[in-house]
Formats: sequence, structure tokens, C-alpha cells
Amino acid sequence: MTSTALLTDQYELTMISAALAAGTAGRRCVFEVFARRLPDGRRYGVVAGTGRLLDELADFRFTDDELRALTGIVDEATLDWLAGYRFSGEIDGYAEGELYFPGSPVLTVRGGFAEAVILETLVLSILNHDSAIASAAARMVSAAAGRPIIEMGSRRTHERAAVAAARAAYLAGLTATSNLEAARTYGVPSAGTAAHAWTLSFAGSGGERAAFAAQIARLGIGTTLLVDTYDITTGVRNAIEVAGPELNAVRIDSGDLGMLARQVRQQLDDLGATRTKIVVSGDLDEYAIASLRAEPVDIYGVGTSLVTGSGAPTAGMVYKLVEVDGIPVSKRASHKESRGGAKRAVRTARDTGTVVEEILYRDGTALPPDAAGTLNVRELQIPLVRGGDRVDGLPTLTDARTHLARGLVSLPWEGLGLSHGEPAIGTRFADTPTPETP
Amino acid sequence: MTSTALLTDQYELTMISAALAAGTAGRRCVFEVFARRLPDGRRYGVVAGTGRLLDELADFRFTDDELRALTGIVDEATLDWLAGYRFSGEIDGYAEGELYFPGSPVLTVRGGFAEAVILETLVLSILNHDSAIASAAARMVSAAAGRPIIEMGSRRTHERAAVAAARAAYLAGLTATSNLEAARTYGVPSAGTAAHAWTLSFAGSGGERAAFAAQIARLGIGTTLLVDTYDITTGVRNAIEVAGPELNAVRIDSGDLGMLARQVRQQLDDLGATRTKIVVSGDLDEYAIASLRAEPVDIYGVGTSLVTGSGAPTAGMVYKLVEVDGIPVSKRASHKESRGGAKRAVRTARDTGTVVEEILYRDGTALPPDAAGTLNVRELQIPLVRGGDRVDGLPTLTDARTHLARGLVSLPWEGLGLSHGEPAIGTRFADTPTPETP
Repeated sequence: MTSTALLTDQYELTMISAALAAGTAGRRCVFEVFARRLPDGRRYGVVAGTGRLLDELADFRFTDDELRALTGIVDEATLDWLAGYRFSGEIDGYAEGELYFPGSPVLTVRGGFAEAVILETLVLSILNHDSAIASAAARMVSAAAGRPIIEMGSRRTHERAAVAAARAAYLAGLTATSNLEAARTYGVPSAGTAAHAWTLSFAGSGGERAAFAAQIARLGIGTTLLVDTYDITTGVRNAIEVAGPELNAVRIDSGDLGMLARQVRQQLDDLGATRTKIVVSGDLDEYAIASLRAEPVDIYGVGTSLVTGSGAPTAGMVYKLVEVDGIPVSKRASHKESRGGAKRAVRTARDTGTVVEEILYRDGTALPPDAAGTLNVRELQIPLVRGGDRVDGLPTLTDARTHLARGLVSLPWEGLGLSHGEPAIGTRFADTPTPETP
Repeated sequence: MTSTALLTDQYELTMISAALAAGTAGRRCVFEVFARRLPDGRRYGVVAGTGRLLDELADFRFTDDELRALTGIVDEATLDWLAGYRFSGEIDGYAEGELYFPGSPVLTVRGGFAEAVILETLVLSILNHDSAIASAAARMVSAAAGRPIIEMGSRRTHERAAVAAARAAYLAGLTATSNLEAARTYGVPSAGTAAHAWTLSFAGSGGERAAFAAQIARLGIGTTLLVDTYDITTGVRNAIEVAGPELNAVRIDSGDLGMLARQVRQQLDDLGATRTKIVVSGDLDEYAIASLRAEPVDIYGVGTSLVTGSGAPTAGMVYKLVEVDGIPVSKRASHKESRGGAKRAVRTARDTGTVVEEILYRDGTALPPDAAGTLNVRELQIPLVRGGDRVDGLPTLTDARTHLARGLVSLPWEGLGLSHGEPAIGTRFADTPTPETP
């Protein structure tokens, strides 16, 4: 195991040090994770990363190595406490693949002040990254309207973030990833054929035709030939002459993809390769994908825009203390106020399945009467950790993928719009308690 | 060691498989890493990640675990080749902390086709991420005009990307990081005091004053008290009453930071705390930092905008095959053409030290006569790897930090502008060879 314990901001340990000295480290606390708003113009967010968080929580231990690194940063008493650290509290949260909206309490951590405050960085790093990717990816999947999308963005983001991004993209409905570590670690289907370097490597010894022939010889006609290294029309002709009209696919990675797709489709059909698919890639985002909807494109490859969250590389979630020894608390000095008190969340739906609103209400109170009277009310939080241990039988990555696909179908029709808009449904705080005055 | 070998796109292994079958795996190749353009409106980029790349290259090995994961993805012959994989070629590159511009050959990898093509993803993931962060961070350091900046963005990016971001930010001149793993792994100075949760955790048992007293009791008056949990004016009064006028610093994390800084400065001075510093944080980017230049701010804390590259989360570098068995090659089907042939790079400067331009010329040829006649010509590429091994005595992270600080001083004055502009100096291709026709 590689310890994840130092993936932590120093202030968490400083606070623990002071709390141990003040005798407040064990105060019963509730921390909630939520996003104050969605990224600009987005209509929904997708919760992702929960599975990874539970994996990394299990490795959140201060071994001798970590304690040595912290010597001089925190005092002996704190080091002793860290040496015995093991989260012993409870975590509830929205299932992976659940939609979220501004204020949705996507994760709730209950425990002593010290044992819970220390998890802030790990929790937020994972949820903010993975949710940002899944949220962008889900829009791309909508835009593709059923056509497959392959994730190929590893080269444009941090090498480990790339693995998590491939996982989040698969959760959101992408078909496959180029990333081999994601295939190993999470079982995401992987894909890949050739880059321009392959064709270029035959310069001076047969050129593009030789490159295609070598690729077909080894990988068969089920492969995809990249036809835009030199001239696309020549590339397509070379591809079909070398592979025959049963070639699985050609890929275009540059230029006006819509115009080129039409031209290549016509050429392929003229060459009798009527079943040869067209893969397009090259700076695609959800808008570019949507703009290609009427074009003869069979498969999309997305990279940069996916791994950078298509303009929103972080979900902006925060980890806020909302309750101490049963007292609701919240910051009040600015526009940033959150609502104190641990919350539960339900989403109501019409009989058609279309969701109506999200209702948050104080934990420990009854569901508000107007919601309780509705026929279709779904609890959004599920137990994730009890007594510090992961609950058995949690949804798998595949479950999360299915859950999201269903969730997207449940949105009001305008919720899937790509243009800037409001959250697809409203979030209503029912029975919000009054925050405690200090 | 944790192998980094699967931080790789599948197409690299597919190409190797085909190359082994075709007998082309050993062709002598040169791959170059460069950015076709800088992020929109940026005037320079900062090379970062080289040190991390060399670390991860040493762990790029296919052990039994990796080979098992690849069974079914590539053939037996390829698995055998991967089992013995160890990069044996040469790598040259711009030193970490060097400035780069469009087309700058920031890394050059020489080796057999297969052994070099396989490194594309690892190389690009690291350089694209770290350079994006360092490039944004350098602008923040310029904007801060000598005031210290603390990096506290870990919660807004992938948990491992956060560690690399802290390293890149330190390279770019930030003073410290909140990230403890970056402190352990790279020796970046770490910092941190308390969050709003600390103050809130004293709700019902003394509130803000009790929280401040407990923090001071444990950490002394050298700490920073966060004064905006409830009312800032009350917070500042509580802080000084509890800590005395020798308190090191107060932090404001929300609101109109300029107005609040003036107000808090006045209040601190009135309370006799004339040496108590003001730390500001909360959605700061280089523009917000610059806008606070005239305000009584002593230290900035930056988070989200830093770890997301302030609008440019990836540097957009590519890894392109430029030479095969001595033949210059390049893709030509689109606007994406690169220039074939391995290149060397120099930067010329006036006697004042101000740089004039970057000149790229074909490796193996003499420096162009007009550059050779200039007094101040600096070679930009340094040897990084020879025979697969890291060269001894490479610049350290601290060296890179110093190198960048000097590099920024060498830019023409308009090069440090924050507004959208052109690259600070031009890049000229001298003696560009004609690419080979296939």
C-alpha cells in the first residue's frame, strides 16, 4: 500500500494539534460536501469519485514514513495521535453517477472533529476532479446521441489524473479509453491503433502504403487506419487498396471534420467500402460533437476537452462543518454562507419519471409534508462507511454508469441543453434551521 | 517502486506490435516535444516537470503485473519485448524553469522507433500538466510584485496532480504550499494554520474567541488567525484581544478583499497591531492579485486558479516524430504541420541581458551566421539522459526556481504584461529542411 495520508493540507493537522491541546478533538461533528453553484451555464453535475475515495480512505494511515515527514511540522502529541489514526465514523453520500445541483449534500462525514476534519483534502481532491470530468463527459455523451466516444486525453493531463479521468469518462457513458492503467485498475475497456508517427516512420521505405500494409498485416482489417498524415484522399485510397473494402475504420484527426467526413464517406462508398466506419478526433468538445450530428461520423475520439472538464476543470465542491455536538453551524461573514445542520435530500418525480425538484431537509426531522405527499420520492444519500469500514455491496462502476444514464433520461427536456442555462431542477431547503450565534 | 509503464496509451503498444512484426521497431528516430502555440494571449510558457519525468522514466518497467494486464491487448512477441524494455536512448531538453515559446523544442528523445514512441504519453502528461501550472504561477508571482504567495489549491484538483502542482508552483516562485506530500517528496516549504471549521467547532462553547485562544495557546502568536467566519470587525478585535498586538497575521478569505484589507489594516493599526500582517485568499488569480497591488496586503493565498492553470489547464504540447533514419519527416495534411528534422535552439540577448529572439536550426548544422555573429547566444537544450540513464548533476528544483526568476527578468518589458498579447519574443526557424515526400 502507498499511504494517502499526506495528500492533506497542513492546516488540517494544525487544527488537530490545537484541538488535542484544547480538548475539543472529539467533538461530534458533521461535515458536508456540496457545490455552491454549478460551473457557468451548466444544468447539472454528475457525482463521481466516490469509489476511488473509499479505496484511498482505506490507505489513509500514518506509517513511520509519514510520521517522520511530519516531525517539525506538528508536535509530538499530534504525531502520537496520527500514528493511531483510523477513521471510525460514518460517511453517507449520493451514489456515484447520481446527478447533483447547487447545494446538494453529495457527501456527509460524521465523526469526531479531528478524525473528520483531516479528510477534507482527500475527499475534495477526488470528488472535485472526478465529478468535473464526469460532468463534462456526460454532456459529450448527450451530444453524441448514441454514437460511441473513445476517451484519449491522457496526454493532456497529469499522468495519474489521466487514469481517474478515464474512469470518470467511462462512468459518464464513454465507450472506451486509450489509458492502459485505467484498463488495469478499473476494467475500463481500452482501445488504440496508431498515431501519425506510425505512418511517418515509414518515410523513405514505402511511406503511407507500407505503413498501412504493416498495420493490417499485424492487426488485421478490424483495425483503424489514420488517413490524414499526408493527403486525405490519397490516404483513403491507400487504406482501401491495402486493406480491402472490409476495413473496419479510418480516422481523421485534423481539418474541417464535418466536410472531411462527408468527402471521405463518399469516397469510401465509391470504393465499395460502405461499411468502413469513420472515426473523427482533434480538439472535439461537446459543441463540436453536436455540430457533427448530421455528418456521416461513426465514432468520436475526445481528448483535451474531456480531461480538462471542457472549461470547468474542477467541480468547486467544498467540505464544510455544518454541525457540532448537535448544534447547526455556518459561516456568515460573506456571500458564502452555507446552511447549518446536517441535511438529508430527496428528489421528487412525476409519474412519467421526470424529476421535479430536489428537497433538502434537516436530518432527524420528517420529510416535509408537501414532499411526503408526492408519489415519487427518492432518497439520494446512501450509506458508504459505517464504523470506519466501507459498507458491503456498494454500487460498482458499471452500476454507476447505468445509474447516470437513467438519471439523465429523468431530467426535464431542457436539462440536456448544451447552451448556457439554469440548473435543470431547483433545490429547495425545507425547514432550514437557524444557525447558532457564537 | 510503482511501475509507471501503464501510464501509456494503447496505440503506442499497438504500433510497437506492428513495428516488431514489420521489422521497423529499431529504426533510429527523433521525437520532439513542442507547443504549437501558447495558451490564448499568453506571452511565455515555463518548462516544468522534467525532474518528475526523469524519476518516472526510471520506474517505466513492465513487471509481471503489467504484462499480465496486457495479455489479450497485445500479442506474445510484444509482451516479450516489453518484458525486457528499458529506454536506452538519449534525451535532451530545455532545463526546468526555462521559458519557452511556440515551436520551442523543449524535449528531444532519440532512440529506436519502439523504445521512443512508447514514452509519448508519460512525457506529455507530465510536461503538459506541470508546465501549465508553472506558466500560470509565474504570472501570479509577477503580479504579486514581491509579496509572498502561498499555494493552497490541493482541494481543487486530482489528489496526485495536487502534489505536482505544488512543486511546479514552487518552481515558479511561490513561497510555500499547503500540501504535505509535496513537502515530503520535493522539499517544498509547507504552511497552514486553520480553516473556518476551526472557529465553527467552538460553537456553543465560547465561539470565535475560544477558538482563537485555543489556537494561540497551541501555536503561539506566530500563527495566522482567520477572522472572517462571522463578522470581520469583531473577528479582528477578538484576534488582537486574545493574541495581543504582536499577532503575526490575520487572514481574510471572502468578500471584497481590497476594501476589507484597507479596513482591517486601519483597525489593526488603531489596535496597535501595526506589524500584524494581512493574508488574503479566496478565488485569487493573477488579475485579482494585480488589482490588490495598491492595497495593504502582505501575503496572498491562491488555490483553484493555480491548480487549474488559470484558464489554461494544459500546455498543449505534442510529441512528434521529426526524423527517421536521418530523414526529416512531418505531417502535412492540415494546418497542423510541424517542421521536420531534429532541431537545436538558441536564444539571443542584448548586452543588457534582454532576450531578442529564439532561433531554431537543424541539428548537425552550424548556428546560422547572423546568430553566430551575435555576442550573447545561449544554447537552450541540455543533456538529460544518455544511454537510458539520467545524466549526473542536473539542475535541482531550487536551481530551476532561480533559473526561471532570471529568465523572467530577461524578457522585454512587455513580456510580463498580464493582458492578452503576443509571445514576448519571436521564434525563427533558420535553415528549415524540406520534409521528405513519402
